[in-house]
Amino acid sequence: MTQSHETSSENLKKLRDLIQDIEYAMLTTINEEGELHSRPMATNREVEFDGDVWFFTYASSYKVFEINRNHQVNVSYAAPDKQRYVSLSGIAELVRDRQKLEELWKPQLQAWFPKGIDEPDIALIKVSVKKAEYWDSPSSLVANTISLVKGAVTGKPADVSEHEKLELK
Amino acid sequence: MTQSHETSSENLKKLRDLIQDIEYAMLTTINEEGELHSRPMATNREVEFDGDVWFFTYASSYKVFEINRNHQVNVSYAAPDKQRYVSLSGIAELVRDRQKLEELWKPQLQAWFPKGIDEPDIALIKVSVKKAEYWDSPSSLVANTISLVKGAVTGKPADVSEHEKLELK
Repeated sequence: MTQSHETSSENLKKLRDLIQDIEYAMLTTINEEGELHSRPMATNREVEFDGDVWFFTYASSYKVFEINRNHQVNVSYAAPDKQRYVSLSGIAELVRDRQKLEELWKPQLQAWFPKGIDEPDIALIKVSVKKAEYWDSPSSLVANTISLVKGAVTGKPADVSEHEKLELK
Repeated sequence: MTQSHETSSENLKKLRDLIQDIEYAMLTTINEEGELHSRPMATNREVEFDGDVWFFTYASSYKVFEINRNHQVNVSYAAPDKQRYVSLSGIAELVRDRQKLEELWKPQLQAWFPKGIDEPDIALIKVSVKKAEYWDSPSSLVANTISLVKGAVTGKPADVSEHEKLELK
């Protein structure tokens, strides 16, 4: 169903609320043999979620190699204590943008990047989210599904279907 | 490096210890458009892990459609309170085997399968794990990597490389 801009904003807010206190997401990529890998990624959780997810990375890392070969990724969030699980399906790309690095930088990232944003190999992985699904309780057979189709791309407002039935097991 | 059967058993035990108390894993599959989806799956956590992961499913579910089209999957486990993250890369297949269903059945599965294993559409997803990676603390730049290459398939003992460097960000 087509929705208004307001409804789309509400969906983004809902997703933001779901993921903002989850410190690590699993980023799943596809390697050259078609195998799926995942690894924990710090989420910069204070950052406003507008449909894009950003991760700091070394540009020369293997996951960037995988992303450059196949842009399809999944970002999953698990908060077992809240029985909350989120799946974001999207398109990943490498971004080298000093201004964006400065904007997103958090002091705790120093653990991975001792030189901070002056690290020559530092870059960002941008994931443009196309579809989000979330489970507030995994024992439910129903996944809430949000499709994020951006106006800038399609000229149409975001599309959403809620409460799509999706078997959990 | 090649290892003895004993070392392989130790790796399986290590993985079992890492995942056995995690109630839900995220199963990531690839759809017909190449997009990556994930969803929480109950893990039957008491089951002995021998290199295969089993999930109950409805055979007619969309994820089974995805798996039949592309067998590559990822199973990820997150225990944020323990700072523990596990990625299993493997090959999924649908298994319809009454004996295996009986063996793996747990009373709590009744929530999803009211008819139990008499449900006509019930089946199992078997994931043969080829590679496991785990992070005991995500702030480490090092992932512990275990390759599970089964003797039955290759005629050789399992291969393992530990402490492979893998950038986290």
